[in-house]
Formats: sequence, structure tokens, C-alpha cells
Amino acid sequence: MTKRVAVIGAGPSGLAQLRAFQSAAQKGAEIPEIVCFEKQSNWGGLWNYTWRTGVDENGEPVHGSMYRYLWSNGPKEGLEFADYSFEEHFGKQIASYPPRAVLFDYIEGRVLKANVRDWIRFSTVVRWVEYDADKGDFEVTVHDMKSDTVTRERFDNVIVASGHFSSPNVPEYPGFDRFNGRIVHAHDFRDAREFEGKDVLLMGSSYSAEDIGSQCWKYGANSITTCYRSAPMGFDWPDNWEEKGGFERVEGKTAYFKDGTTKDIDAIILCTGYRHYFPFLPDDLRLKTANRLATADLYKGVAYVHNPKLFYLGMQDQWFTFNMFDAQAWWVRDAIMGRIEIPADKQVLMADVAEREAREEASDDTKYAIKYQADYIKELVAETDYPSFNVDGACEAFFEWKKHKSENIMGFRNNSYTSVITGTEAPVHHTPWKDALDDSLEVYLQN
Amino acid sequence: MTKRVAVIGAGPSGLAQLRAFQSAAQKGAEIPEIVCFEKQSNWGGLWNYTWRTGVDENGEPVHGSMYRYLWSNGPKEGLEFADYSFEEHFGKQIASYPPRAVLFDYIEGRVLKANVRDWIRFSTVVRWVEYDADKGDFEVTVHDMKSDTVTRERFDNVIVASGHFSSPNVPEYPGFDRFNGRIVHAHDFRDAREFEGKDVLLMGSSYSAEDIGSQCWKYGANSITTCYRSAPMGFDWPDNWEEKGGFERVEGKTAYFKDGTTKDIDAIILCTGYRHYFPFLPDDLRLKTANRLATADLYKGVAYVHNPKLFYLGMQDQWFTFNMFDAQAWWVRDAIMGRIEIPADKQVLMADVAEREAREEASDDTKYAIKYQADYIKELVAETDYPSFNVDGACEAFFEWKKHKSENIMGFRNNSYTSVITGTEAPVHHTPWKDALDDSLEVYLQN
Ligand SMILES: Cc1cc2nc3c(=O)[nH]c(=O)nc-3n(C[C@H](O)[C@H](O)[C@H](O)COP(=O)(O)OP(=O)(O)OC[C@H]3O[C@@H](n4cnc5c(N)ncnc54)[C@H](O)[C@@H]3O)c2cc1C
Ligand SMILES: Cc1cc2nc3c(=O)[nH]c(=O)nc-3n(C[C@H](O)[C@H](O)[C@H](O)COP(=O)(O)OP(=O)(O)OC[C@H]3O[C@@H](n4cnc5c(N)ncnc54)[C@H](O)[C@@H]3O)c2cc1C
Ligand SMILES: NC(=O)c1ccc[n+]([C@@H]2O[C@H](COP(=O)([O-])OP(=O)(O)OC[C@H]3O[C@@H](n4cnc5c(N)ncnc54)[C@H](OP(=O)(O)O)[C@@H]3O)[C@@H](O)[C@H]2O)c1
Ligand SMILES: NC(=O)c1ccc[n+]([C@@H]2O[C@H](COP(=O)([O-])OP(=O)(O)OC[C@H]3O[C@@H](n4cnc5c(N)ncnc54)[C@H](OP(=O)(O)O)[C@@H]3O)[C@@H](O)[C@H]2O)c1
Repeated sequence: MTKRVAVIGAGPSGLAQLRAFQSAAQKGAEIPEIVCFEKQSNWGGLWNYTWRTGVDENGEPVHGSMYRYLWSNGPKEGLEFADYSFEEHFGKQIASYPPRAVLFDYIEGRVLKANVRDWIRFSTVVRWVEYDADKGDFEVTVHDMKSDTVTRERFDNVIVASGHFSSPNVPEYPGFDRFNGRIVHAHDFRDAREFEGKDVLLMGSSYSAEDIGSQCWKYGANSITTCYRSAPMGFDWPDNWEEKGGFERVEGKTAYFKDGTTKDIDAIILCTGYRHYFPFLPDDLRLKTANRLATADLYKGVAYVHNPKLFYLGMQDQWFTFNMFDAQAWWVRDAIMGRIEIPADKQVLMADVAEREAREEASDDTKYAIKYQADYIKELVAETDYPSFNVDGACEAFFEWKKHKSENIMGFRNNSYTSVITGTEAPVHHTPWKDALDDSLEVYLQN
Repeated sequence: MTKRVAVIGAGPSGLAQLRAFQSAAQKGAEIPEIVCFEKQSNWGGLWNYTWRTGVDENGEPVHGSMYRYLWSNGPKEGLEFADYSFEEHFGKQIASYPPRAVLFDYIEGRVLKANVRDWIRFSTVVRWVEYDADKGDFEVTVHDMKSDTVTRERFDNVIVASGHFSSPNVPEYPGFDRFNGRIVHAHDFRDAREFEGKDVLLMGSSYSAEDIGSQCWKYGANSITTCYRSAPMGFDWPDNWEEKGGFERVEGKTAYFKDGTTKDIDAIILCTGYRHYFPFLPDDLRLKTANRLATADLYKGVAYVHNPKLFYLGMQDQWFTFNMFDAQAWWVRDAIMGRIEIPADKQVLMADVAEREAREEASDDTKYAIKYQADYIKELVAETDYPSFNVDGACEAFFEWKKHKSENIMGFRNNSYTSVITGTEAPVHHTPWKDALDDSLEVYLQN
């Protein structure tokens, strides 16, 4: 009997998995039956923009964390698919920091070409997954929102590709329950223009604080204050942007900081990160990990050590994204199809995890971390037929990006890099990022 | 063996259920083992205010739909517990439209006295319920968020008291995906001061539109525009409040209405109601009903006709609230304890539902509807030992309330009524509602 494989989620990771199987089929292999469950009505995961916040039209937590005017925060040269270049998709080379709509188009292009949309059941929420030790398979309970019916199906393998930048980590600080302004987590931030003329406080010192602060600045906020818990971002901020030490409390509309200073604010945006969240998984299947490069309990970063018939994609903290998901998806495909053997001895699997953890912890250096994840990609790619590509070259794009950010935080997106897939250099974008208020696909591609 | 009963939710309905069982025990009866699962960290249901919106600290949809400065929208004389009066709780009679904090205190008072807090497992989400036809009982899967563990237990009966004003109904209209202001559902509205000086559009023509509009007006919005789908609210609104016909679309910051008029707006608040939402129930147990007085599929408004070991509390649209939940909870208790017999013939159960539906549909009149629900309460109370009270007198309070609202929509909360439980008249509140900006419990009780 043909194996049946469930894929949970049709974001970049889940779609990489569909493309991986389709590519094997294209080369003549007999592949399992694949059923992908996606709770949204369209594919693309986080890249499928929604104006909705809180819960969606079906009462489920809104998945989308992206907002209007979001542009890639890293160079596209660091994430390009090895089997489907930007040039192939757009018919020309494009600038290096595409807005969300442009990247959505690119992600979609590959899977449209692969013709795998029929494998996906949209508006279908995975409610529960259970492993049946007697039968050696999984029972998956899903809620089809279109018909409002709940059904069950059995699968030999389950691949969790539900993302981990969707369920917000929302700390509480003194005064939040009495603050008279708006408090919103980055997850529910949608349009910087809502904060025009406002004094905005952003909590956090990572990508969301940096980028949402930059959006608000670009679209006319009166002042930006960011505050860090561990360390400042330390960029050379514009004049009306101040970076402060730890936040203590808010009283009325005044925020108090650990260094004794205060600031009057209209709104608080919590850029305090996300949590791995799997409400559909029981204890014996549920991954519990911090957001780091070496996730807990995943052999080769993908196979769940406590039950290696279960796989997770993209659960790492991410320097690399689409190309890493591809490397993982091809590897998982081959494990399921028996081309790669997962050791039967659980100790071996756990030792693999421990080794990855130790190696990650060996240095705090950013370049080290980027190289670490590059090595991981190289390791997986070497074990499958995914087109090998110059991963070290992609690393160089990240190193350049870091340098450009520290030189000019409001200007780094004006730079361009060289594709490691096609070898061509990206054009410089026609408009500096800070002046490019219309970031539609049509306008972005005018070069 | 003692029966085991699961109660899902510790809001007013679930707490009524705990009090019902405790009251039987107090009178010497042997009661089942009761386990109440509550996803929040405290009891009170919607009355347990939270500043959070979207998803909560555990990643679950925030339950709370209440906001700061919310006062009862009906007179307290329409909802008083027959076994625990306002005078017993506060040591004196209080004014008729208490703010949220005051009603929370009252709800809590009765269950503190009954000493049932230990029956509740807080921060515990019910993930899944399954009926086992062979064993004739239920398997309930719960996620304890404190320990992050998922466990299963068996119960003879399940009582769903999870509320139905929590999962928002969020329609999409043309232009929402490009609107540059804030779009928020009433469920995530928290503080009217966020809209000070703003031009606010509220969609809907029911309680939320009326009350959130009134809040925004009271706390200094620049203008209020409400728009209806079926019929206007038709009150005599303040000067800067306009009620418009159907909403068509938004372009830029301009809203377009069916009557050809437009209005420039800063924010859209969707007061478009809620949906019955039970993500933890399979098809054979899940209630599907409109928000109406005669719910589908519930015998006596509580026992699920397709499996009468399963009960639902408070699933009706509500004129009466706390006292109706009590009437239901006492009835359900007695059904479970074998004091009331539920007919074995499913046809009889379905006929009961059909009769209630037909009787509800017999008239569109508001007084008729209020009396209809009063009759329902009387019917249930007559079958249990819940203290009988003057339900018709409570109806009179509602009729007066309706009259007071049509006379003065911004002043109706300045009236007072007579308790049908203690016979005493409520004092007139010390400050007119529109001037009472501090609505803390301490300030409210100063009379
Ligand atoms: C604000 C933000 C900006 C980002 N910007 C960039 C960027 O510029 N460049 C970059 O490379 N990366 C960026 N990322 C990183 C992002 O994680 C990846 O680009 C990518 O989206 C991850 O893909 P994924 O498929 O693993 O997860 P997701 O994109 O999150 O997709 C997961 C899918 O699973 C579905 N799902 C979840 N639960 C269920 C369920 N129970 N049943 C059915 N379906 C379910 C979801 O609906 C979703 O479609 C950003 C992330 C965030 C939060
Ligand atoms: C904005 C607003 C204002 C209102 N104002 C008034 C008013 O002024 N006067 C009045 O009489 N009524 C008012 N109501 C009506 C309200 O419905 C009732 O007062 C009352 O709260 C209903 O009680 P309940 O217990 O049925 O539901 P809820 O109060 O909603 O309580 C349900 C409980 O179930 C819990 N729960 C839900 N799902 C799960 C799960 N899966 N696992 C575990 N626990 C779960 C929730 O956390 C919650 O504590 C108002 C309603 C709204 C929305
Ligand atoms: N394309 C784009 O432009 C873009 C924009 C936004 C986000 N993203 C992506 O989204 C992902 C998530 O990024 P993120 O910035 O949201 O999350 P993150 O990288 O996990 O950072 C979370 C931040 O919140 C802080 N924090 C956590 N808990 C806190 C608490 N209780 N009190 C105070 N501070 C607290 C952390 O401080 P510590 O350092 O002290 O832990 C950290 O600064 C990344 O992959 C990123 O690339 C991309
Ligand atoms: N204490 C308080 O002050 C207070 C405050 C707020 C709410 N509440 C309580 O909360 C409960 C819910 O009240 P609610 O007003 O939120 O909900 P509701 O009574 O169900 O009303 C929903 C409203 O939204 C409209 N609507 C629904 N779908 C729509 C769509 N697609 N487009 C346009 N309009 C749409 C409905 O119009 P139609 O008439 O055309 O269907 C109706 O006017 C009630 O029990 C109420 O008492 C109390």
C-alpha cells in the first residue's frame, strides 16, 4: 500500500516539502500520497498578508505576523531557491530587498510551476494528532472550516511545518492594565500609518523592534523609543529615535525606565518575540524548544528523536530561510522514502542533537552563527539530490548585509548583492527605501 | 462509584453550576465529583478583565471581550441571584447599573462563600472531548498551561459553559486590506481613551455598537458614526453622533455608504457580534446554533438532544443572564443527579426544541421576547429547589430600562429600580454616568 504523509502548513516550509516530493515524482520515483492541511484560505504562510488581527474569520488565532510595507530584512541572495532563481521567476534580475508582495509572488511561482496546489486542503485546521503505537501510524483530526465538519485520517508520517513566528510572547509589565493608550504585540501590528504623529514605545531589541520602529519612523511617527532587556541594538538611529535601557512600568501615559528616565508615550508595541506553539500535539509528540539554531530533540534538525516518524521543518532560529527549508524538505522526503536511513538507536539520535547544541554554544559570534547554519545546510544538501549551491557565497551576502546595517540602518536596503544561483548582480533599486512609500509589486519591479 | 462531571468554563454559567452542586451538598445530598476546567488564571469569565487582546499569555485566543469603563447595560435588578442578593454581598443596596468591577466582586462573593474554588483547575484549556459509546462516558483531553502537560480523564457527564460572546464575527468589506487606520473588533476594544479626538466608525446596530460608541463619546472622540445592516438603533444621539445606512467600502480614509454619503474616519470598530465556537468538540457533540432565544438542539435549553449526557449552559441570546444561568444550572444538576428525568425518546426532545422555536418566532415584539425568556426561567425554576423569585417583577425592570433608554440614551444609567429579591429600591447613583470618569469599585460604592 502507498504510504500516506500529512504535511501541516503550506507556508514556505510546507511548500518546500510538496515541491521536494513533486520533484522526485518528476524524476520518475513513486512517491507517497501527500495531504497538506492549511488553516488559511491561501498558501504562503506568513507571507500571505492579512489585515485581520487576533482571531481569523473562523475563530482561529490569526497566523499572519507580517504587516504592510514589510520588505525583506535580509538580502534575497541569502534565501534564493537553488532550483528556481529570481531570474527564472521574474524574467530578469531584481533588487536585493524585495517587499513582501514580491517575495510572495516568488514563493508562489515555484509551486504553481510544480502544480501541487491540489495536494493542499485549505481552510482546514489540524486539531489533534495522535500516535497509535499498536498500528504504528498517526491519527490526524482536522476541522474543515468550509463545511464545518471534523474528520479523521490515518498517516504513516506527519511533517509539522506550522511555523514558529506566529504565536506571540506577550509579557506583562506593571501598569499595562491601566495604560490609556494602545498596547499591541508585533504580531498584530499592521500599518505604520496608524502611528503617524504618535510617540511610540517599542519593547525589544531584535528584528521586529528594529523594523517596526523603522516603519513607524518612515511613515511619520513623532518619536520612536526602543528599549532593550539584554543589550541595545546600537545602530546610529535618526534624531527622533532613542534607545533606552530596561523598561520598568507605565503610569498614566508615562513610561519609566531602569536608568531613571521617563518618556511620555501614546502606544506600546511589544516586539518581544514568538513561541513555539503546537496546540494540536500531545506530550509525546510536542516539540519543546527555545528559539535557537540547534533545536532540542530534532535529529538532523528535523526528525523528532522520541518518534522519528514525525518530522518538524523550519523550527530553528533563522539566518537562512527558504533555502534551509528546502534542504530540510529534501532530506525529510528521502528519509520517508527510505533513501536515507534514520538510526534505530535513540541514543545516536540524541547524541546528534547534543553535538549540534554544543557546537552552537561554542561561540557568541554572529559570523560564527551564520556559518554554523550554512554548514547545516551544506550537510543536508550533500545527502540528497537538492541542487548544490554556493552556500558560503550566500554567507558572504549576510556578512555584507551586517556591515551595511551598521553603516546606515535606514539605508542598508539600498544595497545590492550577487546571486549565488545565477551569478548575476542585482540592480540597485530605483528609489531609496526610506522614500519608497509605494511598495507594490508593480512599482518595485520597475527597473 | 461516584459519578464524575466535567464543567468547561468558570464564568457566571460554570460558577452557577458549581454553586448548584455545592448547595445540594450543603443540604445533605451526595453529589458527583465535579472538575471545572478554566483556561484563564482566574474565574469570572467575561467579567475577568484583561488588557490583553488577540491571544493570551499561553497562545490561546483571549477570552475577554469586556473593556475598561464598562458598566452593566441592563439594570442589576434583572440579573440578581435569588440565593445571594446585592444587599447580602455589599451590606447595603447599591445603584442599578454597576461597573464591571462591581459585578465581578458580586459574582465572586457567592462562590467564595460557597467555597468551591478548589473544584477549578485554572490555566487549563480543554483541547478535546470525545464520547465513548461503548463505555457510555466521555474522554476529556486538557492542556495544563502551568506545567505544559496534556492529560486525559473520563467523565460521566460534560457541561459546556464556555460562553458565546468571545469568538468574534469579523466580516470583510472592500478596502479593509488597504485602509490606513486601525480596524478592530469589539472583542479587542479595550480603552475608549485610545480614540480621543478621533473620528470613529462603528459597524453594527446592537449593544456593542451602542455601548462602545457611547464610551468613545464619553471619553472624547471627535465624532461617532454608526452604521447598520438591518435597522438603525434610532436613539436620540448627541450632536457629534450620526447613524448611517449600510456600509459599502472604504477608500483611503473615506468610508462610503449605500445612501451615497461619505465620512472621513480614523478607525473602524467592528461591533458585528460573536459566534458560537467550540474548537474542542467533534461533530457529534458540537452545538451549531444561531444567537437566539430558542437555541437549536437543546432540550429544555440545556440538554443536547443528540446526546443528553452532554449539557450546555447560557447558549441563548440573553435578556436575562445570571439568574437564567442559575435556573439552568440547578436543572442540569438535578438531571445529572437523577432528580429530573430526561425522556429517553429523542423525538420528545426534538419536539421540545421545535415548540420553543415556534413560540419564539411567533412575535417580533421586544416585550414578548423578554417575557418569553422570563417564562423559560420560571419553567426551569419550578422543577428544582432554586429559590423561586418574582421573575415578572424582573421583567418590569427591563421594560422600564427600555423606556429609559429611548428617553435618554446617554442618561438611562442614572435611573434606579426595585430589587425583586429583597424588595428594596436602589439608590440613585451619586454621579451621572456621563460625568463618572472614575468607575472603580471604591468610587462606585460611595453612596
Ligand atoms: C514579521 C516577520 C517578518 C519576516 N521577514 C522575513 C524576511 O524578510 N525574510 C525571510 O527570509 N524570512 C522572514 N521571516 C521568517 C519566516 O519565518 C520565514 O520566512 C517563513 O515564513 C517560515 O516559513 P514556515 O513555512 O516555516 O512557517 P510559516 O510561514 O509561519 O507558515 C506556517 C503555515 O502553517 C499553517 N498552520 C499553522 N497551524 C496550523 C494548523 N493547526 N492547521 C493547519 N495549518 C496550520 C499556517 O497557516 C501557515 O500557513 C519573517 C518572519 C516574521 C514573523
Ligand atoms: C462586551 C459584553 C458586555 C456584557 N455586559 C453584560 C452586562 O452588562 N450584563 C449582563 O448581565 N451580561 C452582560 N454580558 C453577557 C455575558 O454573556 C454574561 O454576563 C456572562 O458573562 C456569560 O457567562 P458564561 O459563563 O456563560 O460565559 P463567559 O462569561 O464567556 O465564561 C466562559 C468561561 O469559559 C472559559 N473557557 C472557554 N473555552 C474554554 C476551554 N476550551 N477550556 C477551558 N475554559 C474555557 C472562559 O475562559 C470563560 O472563563 C456581556 C457580554 C459582553 C460580550
Ligand atoms: N522582514 C523583516 O523586516 C522582519 C521584521 C520583523 C521580524 N522579522 C523576523 O521575525 C522573526 C522574529 O523576530 P523578533 O524580533 O520578533 O523576535 P526575537 O528575535 O525573538 O526577539 C525578541 C526580543 O524581545 C525581547 N524580549 C523577550 N521577552 C521579553 C520580556 N519579557 N521583556 C522584555 N523584552 C523581551 C528579547 O530580548 P532578549 O534579547 O533580552 O531576549 C528580544 O530582544 C525573526 O526571524 C526576524 O527575522 C523580519
Ligand atoms: N454591558 C454592556 O454595556 C455591553 C456592551 C456590549 C455588549 N454587551 C453584550 O454583548 C452581547 C453581544 O452584543 P453585540 O452587539 O456584540 O452583538 P449582537 O447583538 O449579536 O449584534 C451584532 C450586530 O452586528 C451586525 N452584523 C453582524 N454581521 C454583520 C455584517 N456582516 N455586516 C454588518 N453588520 C453585521 C448585526 O446586524 P443585523 O441586525 O443586521 O444582524 C448586529 O447589529 C450582548 O449580550 C450584549 O448585551 C453588553
